[in-house]
Amino acid sequence: MIQFHCDYAEGAHPEVLKMLTETNLEQTEGYGKDHYCAEARNIIKRICGTPNADVHFLVGGTQTNMTVISTILKSYEGVVSPETGHINVHETGAVEHSGHKVLTLPSPDGKINAMQLEQMILEQRNDEQHEHMVRPGMVYISFPTEMGTIYSLAELTTIYQVCRRFNMPLFIDGARLGYGLCSPKCDINIQQLAALCDVFYIGGTKVGALFGEAVVITNKKLQENFRYHIKQNGAMLAKGRLLGIQFKALFQDDIYWKISQHAVEQAMRIRQALIDKGYHFFVDSFTNQLFPIMTHEKAVELAKNFLFTTWQHMPQNQDVIRLCTSWATKPEDVTTLINSL
Amino acid sequence: MIQFHCDYAEGAHPEVLKMLTETNLEQTEGYGKDHYCAEARNIIKRICGTPNADVHFLVGGTQTNMTVISTILKSYEGVVSPETGHINVHETGAVEHSGHKVLTLPSPDGKINAMQLEQMILEQRNDEQHEHMVRPGMVYISFPTEMGTIYSLAELTTIYQVCRRFNMPLFIDGARLGYGLCSPKCDINIQQLAALCDVFYIGGTKVGALFGEAVVITNKKLQENFRYHIKQNGAMLAKGRLLGIQFKALFQDDIYWKISQHAVEQAMRIRQALIDKGYHFFVDSFTNQLFPIMTHEKAVELAKNFLFTTWQHMPQNQDVIRLCTSWATKPEDVTTLINSL
Amino acid sequence: MIQFHCDYAEGAHPEVLKMLTETNLEQTEGYGKDHYCAEARNIIKRICGTPNADVHFLVGGTQTNMTVISTILKSYEGVVSPETGHINVHETGAVEHSGHKVLTLPSPDGKINAMQLEQMILEQRNDEQHEHMVRPGMVYISFPTEMGTIYSLAELTTIYQVCRRFNMPLFIDGARLGYGLCSPKCDINIQQLAALCDVFYIGGTKVGALFGEAVVITNKKLQENFRYHIKQNGAMLAKGRLLGIQFKALFQDDIYWKISQHAVEQAMRIRQALIDKGYHFFVDSFTNQLFPIMTHEKAVELAKNFLFTTWQHMPQNQDVIRLCTSWATKPEDVTTLINSL
Amino acid sequence: MIQFHCDYAEGAHPEVLKMLTETNLEQTEGYGKDHYCAEARNIIKRICGTPNADVHFLVGGTQTNMTVISTILKSYEGVVSPETGHINVHETGAVEHSGHKVLTLPSPDGKINAMQLEQMILEQRNDEQHEHMVRPGMVYISFPTEMGTIYSLAELTTIYQVCRRFNMPLFIDGARLGYGLCSPKCDINIQQLAALCDVFYIGGTKVGALFGEAVVITNKKLQENFRYHIKQNGAMLAKGRLLGIQFKALFQDDIYWKISQHAVEQAMRIRQALIDKGYHFFVDSFTNQLFPIMTHEKAVELAKNFLFTTWQHMPQNQDVIRLCTSWATKPEDVTTLINSL
Repeated sequence: MIQFHCDYAEGAHPEVLKMLTETNLEQTEGYGKDHYCAEARNIIKRICGTPNADVHFLVGGTQTNMTVISTILKSYEGVVSPETGHINVHETGAVEHSGHKVLTLPSPDGKINAMQLEQMILEQRNDEQHEHMVRPGMVYISFPTEMGTIYSLAELTTIYQVCRRFNMPLFIDGARLGYGLCSPKCDINIQQLAALCDVFYIGGTKVGALFGEAVVITNKKLQENFRYHIKQNGAMLAKGRLLGIQFKALFQDDIYWKISQHAVEQAMRIRQALIDKGYHFFVDSFTNQLFPIMTHEKAVELAKNFLFTTWQHMPQNQDVIRLCTSWATKPEDVTTLINSL
Repeated sequence: MIQFHCDYAEGAHPEVLKMLTETNLEQTEGYGKDHYCAEARNIIKRICGTPNADVHFLVGGTQTNMTVISTILKSYEGVVSPETGHINVHETGAVEHSGHKVLTLPSPDGKINAMQLEQMILEQRNDEQHEHMVRPGMVYISFPTEMGTIYSLAELTTIYQVCRRFNMPLFIDGARLGYGLCSPKCDINIQQLAALCDVFYIGGTKVGALFGEAVVITNKKLQENFRYHIKQNGAMLAKGRLLGIQFKALFQDDIYWKISQHAVEQAMRIRQALIDKGYHFFVDSFTNQLFPIMTHEKAVELAKNFLFTTWQHMPQNQDVIRLCTSWATKPEDVTTLINSL
Repeated sequence: MIQFHCDYAEGAHPEVLKMLTETNLEQTEGYGKDHYCAEARNIIKRICGTPNADVHFLVGGTQTNMTVISTILKSYEGVVSPETGHINVHETGAVEHSGHKVLTLPSPDGKINAMQLEQMILEQRNDEQHEHMVRPGMVYISFPTEMGTIYSLAELTTIYQVCRRFNMPLFIDGARLGYGLCSPKCDINIQQLAALCDVFYIGGTKVGALFGEAVVITNKKLQENFRYHIKQNGAMLAKGRLLGIQFKALFQDDIYWKISQHAVEQAMRIRQALIDKGYHFFVDSFTNQLFPIMTHEKAVELAKNFLFTTWQHMPQNQDVIRLCTSWATKPEDVTTLINSL
Repeated sequence: MIQFHCDYAEGAHPEVLKMLTETNLEQTEGYGKDHYCAEARNIIKRICGTPNADVHFLVGGTQTNMTVISTILKSYEGVVSPETGHINVHETGAVEHSGHKVLTLPSPDGKINAMQLEQMILEQRNDEQHEHMVRPGMVYISFPTEMGTIYSLAELTTIYQVCRRFNMPLFIDGARLGYGLCSPKCDINIQQLAALCDVFYIGGTKVGALFGEAVVITNKKLQENFRYHIKQNGAMLAKGRLLGIQFKALFQDDIYWKISQHAVEQAMRIRQALIDKGYHFFVDSFTNQLFPIMTHEKAVELAKNFLFTTWQHMPQNQDVIRLCTSWATKPEDVTTLINSL
């Protein structure tokens, strides 16, 4: 079986494992206070053009989302999210478990827009009974989204303008950040992204690391005592250096970007093949996730040799499937898939 | 200004005040362990036909909802609710504050149905990634609903069948219970209702009491240590007898039913007048709340002499307004309103 | 049986009931936005000498404590409290339920002192692993304490100096505030108390009201959106005016102070009699609570005619009992008690 | 500088890294559903003699403690813990953050005993106001304790008898389990330990793994839907196999026990040298942690060449220090330390 099911099926990029092995018996301080974390922080701040940011390393995505969101919100505030947002669907209610409502906006393609956002905020703030309602307190989006789509520079700019007007921090979930920024349709770089939000994270788990997410907090007001939040949420790795080492390995020679580029290229090969063969897409995407529509029979046939996700069933016996490439996807496996389409 | 804005604008039915005054200097034990609470509990259990139920008195509706719901759910479970449910809209996220997601079902008329419910449950339980999703753990409905509608015996029966099949407790918010059970369209009595759920409450705040909600827990499994939950949620009144006295006063001579009947009759007078004058309704209801549609100009004109809620704006310059009667509504005020329509 | 068991055995001072009855059928806005609440707020702000304070009315003590404390603390912060503090012992963990640790200081007499407090704060802040520890974020004391003792002006001043130095809000639980301020040993008035903390409350439940606590927030930073917190904690009374009316009745003609004075005088009569008869005290107090020590046999004998609390058992067959007077204590009942000692 | 500061200064045992490297590019299912996790689970169940246990792999200790404890407790229940327990001191209030009080028992040597426990439970359950108090709902101990001490078979047996009598689950934190079970004073094996509690975990982070804790749930009632809790607490590793691989590597050839044995032997060398040179101990321990007392000057001198923890200052210019060995401690470093004492 060839795997197009997800982007976390393998271990880590070999350079990551190599550096972990080379440093294995070195003695360092725990909890992220070691020199590898310091180095990785500096590299990331340089790349993001955010010398005053705070950078923290956490283990996984749900953990990162719940820690960041519960840090920012006051108890009576909720987080605005696209209906399809990971925090709203696939985190077993971790945000609610931390005490906060997820306020959803319709998002057929995984994205929200500035107008929707403004309208939701104004409706709550102008309501006679506003104190009886959850107050929108921050905005959560992902880049790329759960549907593989990305925001343009213009879109992100207008969303962030609304956020700033209403004094609501913007948090960008970058679990697949590399696959978004390396998309052929992306008109935004990491420095621009970093300047258009208050906090975001650079996903490692899905992009070459064994695990790990690098949280970049650019807004000074959100930086205070963040390490307390990390510890309280069980998210402070004892051997914190494991995270520093991995991000150092991924970023010191641009490995992160190269492997992201690779994954997107392989996805684009599949996308072109699908188009050539007349398939349509549920949502058209230019990152490492594709959502083609096919007959149920075709999907069943493909499933004999390939692992992928059946995203949803459609009328008239059609299925939407998700095909997912990653840093580890082999070009020959893509060729095999293309030949089977 | 005449008030049709809500059902909690006045104090209490005179009999309630009278009994509070007569018993004022009596010394009793605190926290609901007094003999008035005991008497009121017995009356309620008799009326409901539930000799083995536990009855507890709390102060207000949001408090009752959050206490009951957080008692029932496990941490990874959510409460299924109509989208319009009070817990989903007007409780400042108290349920989420207690750690749980509100899982919403579309409900144009305030009600949900058994089919919707079953489908939501099955979707989560059959999902490959079900452990990543909030598990539906109980169902919350209100009787009557936020839209003034009521469930028929058949509807409630099928909903409860689904609940029992999936081992999910059903909780009925009865903040306006009297106004529902006294509706001319109601084909269900309180004993039937009590037998078709696991826990419900009889609203006092909106039906003749100064404040107070009587929670009736019929399901043995949910009874254990409920008083701990009450206390922990700041919901245990020191002078608990105030609640026992009020419910005793309301139920010992059927005052509760008589005043509920009165409120619904006044609402039905308004409803008939609206129909006679050609108005349509956003949702047609037969309890103490009415939702007529009128032009914005007409609504503005009415607002010169009457207090009511503008429920929502509609296309083509139409408004939906809510008119609300109560146990205290004066027939002559209704006549004045009818003349102004 | 004559009751010296607690200070909430009766209903309300007759003037309170009278005003509730007189205003009963008046229609007002809900949720504390009525003119009675406005009047009561103004009276309280005048009495406290805090024209810029925010005043909110809640229903009960545990509810008030949990709402105020969870409003102030960040998620990784705890509340410093005397070990005997009500929040630490008798609120079923409501503070922890809201997510926060109670950090306790030893307090044999119910009080803490500035030196203890400073030492606890410094120990945490200077610890190498301070991020792994709960950070003291505010201070909770009560006036009078659970042991009936009161802070002197000098003591409160030094405690508040420590709080301000470390930027930690001070919250004074005034469930029995009247009984403290009317103590013959009290060298502090309500204006001084209001100036020596960030938020406090004036207890109504135990001092003449049916129920109700008036929260006075003097610190501007803690005022923002407090009504959201009230609602989210199920603490916003629908018929909010019931609270405004009660506090207006208690404060407009100094009833609150007169009845507090009465309760303390009756307690002092008992205290003198105990001393005259050779009893010692577990803690000596000058408010409405007394903690004499007596043989177990004597306590059993007293219990035939009087209700009181057995506070704790001591070695050598001695019991500590609590005798509690209130606004409603009858002088003749005190005489009967004295004769039985 | 030679490190005796903690037991997580290095990476992982070489066999662990080797297996991670060998399996790196294999594609597996995520979230712990892979065959490595399955194998590791089977090995652990066999070793523990618990064929019906559920075994789950989490990343770190605080995360494991908060997940297990919040799973077991009802909202009004607290966890009984020694005052020195890790959950009470060094987890930034993660347990309280999940809504529960830590109920502490005095524990000068890190241990509690059955009598203390029984007395605490009875005091709460027999209290007239028990519903106003947090109800002890489970017991947390660690093996070995934070002070390096261990429970004897007799001690653990009597503690567990109390737990069962009161229907309170016992949870054993085994962050350093290997170092406890390999102590020369230990009269208990892992199968006995597994039979004397309801849930425990085998620590990997401090005993040879990069990270990871294996939770063994022997009590059927606590097994249901535990994976939901893991996910909700952000504790479900995407590449779950990393945990399975590590535990497989540690347990398949008894590496876990061999390296634990090594660490304790090195600690015992230090202990004997301390005794020979006339040092006393704050608490005498026979695991990988030692707590000798020395003059402040001696501690300062040692600190020039060795990293260790100053545990606390004592009167008369004495310091308690903690010396900690691990699986990675080099015998020659121990020799150097001994020569410096």
